[in-house]
This record gives sequence, C-alpha cells and structure tokens, in this order.
Amino acid sequence: MSNTTAASTRTLFTLTWVPEFARGLVRDMRVRWALEEAGLDYQVKLVDFDEKQLAPYRSMQPFAQVPAYQDGALVLFESGAIVHHIAARTAALMPDDEAGRAMTLSWMFAALNSVEPAVMMLCDVDLFNASASWAEARRPALVQQVQTRLADLERALGQRDYLLDRFTAADILMASVLNNLRHTPLVAEYPSLHAYHQRCVKRPAALRALASQMALYEQPVTSE
Amino acid sequence: MSNTTAASTRTLFTLTWVPEFARGLVRDMRVRWALEEAGLDYQVKLVDFDEKQLAPYRSMQPFAQVPAYQDGALVLFESGAIVHHIAARTAALMPDDEAGRAMTLSWMFAALNSVEPAVMMLCDVDLFNASASWAEARRPALVQQVQTRLADLERALGQRDYLLDRFTAADILMASVLNNLRHTPLVAEYPSLHAYHQRCVKRPAALRALASQMALYEQPVTSE
Repeated sequence: MSNTTAASTRTLFTLTWVPEFARGLVRDMRVRWALEEAGLDYQVKLVDFDEKQLAPYRSMQPFAQVPAYQDGALVLFESGAIVHHIAARTAALMPDDEAGRAMTLSWMFAALNSVEPAVMMLCDVDLFNASASWAEARRPALVQQVQTRLADLERALGQRDYLLDRFTAADILMASVLNNLRHTPLVAEYPSLHAYHQRCVKRPAALRALASQMALYEQPVTSE
Repeated sequence: MSNTTAASTRTLFTLTWVPEFARGLVRDMRVRWALEEAGLDYQVKLVDFDEKQLAPYRSMQPFAQVPAYQDGALVLFESGAIVHHIAARTAALMPDDEAGRAMTLSWMFAALNSVEPAVMMLCDVDLFNASASWAEARRPALVQQVQTRLADLERALGQRDYLLDRFTAADILMASVLNNLRHTPLVAEYPSLHAYHQRCVKRPAALRALASQMALYEQPVTSE
C-alpha cells in the first residue's frame, strides 16, 4: 500500500488498477463523490489484486473488495456504509430533520438493495458472460427486471430534481448504480430519469470524484 | 389495508399472503425481529398484491415491495433502512460507541449489498427459473459466487458468536439473508457459519418474529 495524496485523517482504500470496462465504476467513486460534496479532504491508499486477498486488508474489508475507509480510529467498509457515515456528519448530504433523514436512509438502501441487484444481474451477463451458451436466453428477463425498477424510479421522482426535495447522499448512490448501465441504452429509455441521472453525474463534485478515480489509471503501476 | 393488532405508534406494512416457498422469508421478518429484540410493540397493516401496486401504497414504497414502515409521522421503506432506524434508537441492536456503530453499519450494508445479491441470483434461478433452458448451464457459477461469500463470511466470523463481539442489527440482516438459502445445503457446508446462523435464528426474538409472520398465512384471506 502506498500513499498517493497528502496526509489526512480520512483514508480511502482502493485498487491500483482495473480493466477499462470498470474504469469510472469502481465503488471508491461513491466515497470520493460524498467527500467532494462535503468539502472534506482525504488521502488514498492503494491495494493491488493480490494484496486485497491478504489478511491485513481483509481485517478491514472481509470480502476483499474496495473501498475500505478509515476516519481517524474508525474503520468502515461497504460503499453504502461509508457514504452514510460521511453523510450523517454533514448538512451537504442529508437534511437535518428526522423525516428527511429517514427518507434519505430509505433511498440509500433502495439504491443498493432494490435497484443495484437487478442492474448487476444484467451486468454480470453482459460484462462477464456475454458469449456463454445461456446468455442469449437469459438476458431478456433481466432487461425486463431492470426496466421495471427504472420505471418505478422515474415514477417516484415525478417532477423533482432529486430523490428528496434536495440533493442527498441517496442521489450519489442511485446515480452511481445507474452508471453501471452505461453499456446499454436503458436509462435513456426513461427521459425524466435520464435527465435526473445527468443532473447528478454532472455536479462539480461528481466530476472531480470521477477525475480523481480516472487519474489513477494514467499513472504507471508500481509496487512498494 | 386493515389493522391486525392493537394500535401502536409503529406500523409495519406487509403482504396478506405469499406462496409457500416465500413463507418465513418475507422481508417484514427483519423488521419484526428488530422490534422484538428491542422490546417495541407495533401494529401490522396488510396490503394485497393489487393494493401494493397502487398509488397510495407506492407513495410509501416506490417499488411496490414490502415492508414499509411508519413510526409516528416518519415513513421509511426498505428493510435495511427500517432496521437501521430501529437499531439506532436502542442499545439492544447497536453498540453506543462510534467504532461499534461504524462496524454495525458496515456489516448491515455487507449483508444487503455484498452477500444478498449473490444469494438472490441463485434463488432467482432455483425458485423462479429451475426448468428454464439455460438454468443448468448457469447455476454452477452462481453457486460458486455464493460459496465465495460464505467462505469469506465464515473467515471473518472467526471464533466470535456474532459479526461484532455482541449481537447487533447486522446479525438480523445477515441471518435473514442466509435464510434464503434454506432450499440448498450451502450454509451447512461451513460449520462455524452454520452454527452462527442457527445461533441467530434460534434467538427468542427471532422465533417470535417468525411465528408472527407465519401466523398471517393461517388466517383466511379477506379483503376490506
């Protein structure tokens, strides 16, 4: 592991390198975006594919995934948990009234437990199994499941700009989940949802977060 | 919708009826279990398959799923969010130190975003597509993905009785996710994990929650 930015009390652990199809989609993006929205500095520590399988990293991240996160003495894993931890501590990402916080929390879990699973089932076919014998027969039902979720989501958004009546951490997670459909035309089939998605990912904080993730892959890979 | 228990400030919305394969697995179980552990009373309101698609219910639950939840004037949806909301307010389900709360939150998201998606991909084949042309060719890789998660989870548990050094809301979610594998011998392949799972689901609060869900299906279905 090696530091890549100046020392901060907040440390984000992510991968040194990922293949092209995953660039911009690595889940550290969600944490970077939350930190950028909150105006909080952080340092990045990198792990490679071998290191993340080993005990030191697994002691932070039991499933050998990225990201992991340290905030002073606190350790967190899972992008949803890290974003929630950040969001609960800044007005930039969550309303401070109880009803608004309950709704933000609900939409955060909805992004990761109702929308993302359907999206990832489709991605698993398209990105990892496109030429499998069963893929063509399997795919239509998975597309339909995604479409059901996207239609529900568009209906729920109504005329609002964001999931709540203001931008919250839930939009970070939902827009990041929708990013995984970039290899398909599915989001564009829902005009209001598409506009919502674009509204989220074009926020200055989102663009800075994306640039910081992409910058990693422009550096030569070195091991310590 | 109709009341089924005495008035409470807490209301859990769930389905009037589900087919046999889903009994005991409906996600209201997670909320019932959390409330039982916390010693909090609640009332149940029932919706049927048609009602949950309609605007009044969707105004609470945009994806027409169960459960939804009201706590006084607060509305929440998504079992993860509801359980977190309950857990954050009782010492029975979450440590009160910051490190313990961060770790509980991490494991809650891990249950729903790292373990459950793999489990549900397998369940989607076994429970809804078992006779599909592609099922036999698709299944082995899905079993392997589940096994990877279960092995990681067993390794992370180590010698502990629960995910943290005490029972928390994360155990409710993780054990409930593992319940979805009951049609397979997969959990039993990991002896310590299997013991963990049994330790969770045999807690008195879990048994009361299960009994209250199952009792629903013993009543004649009536519409209001």
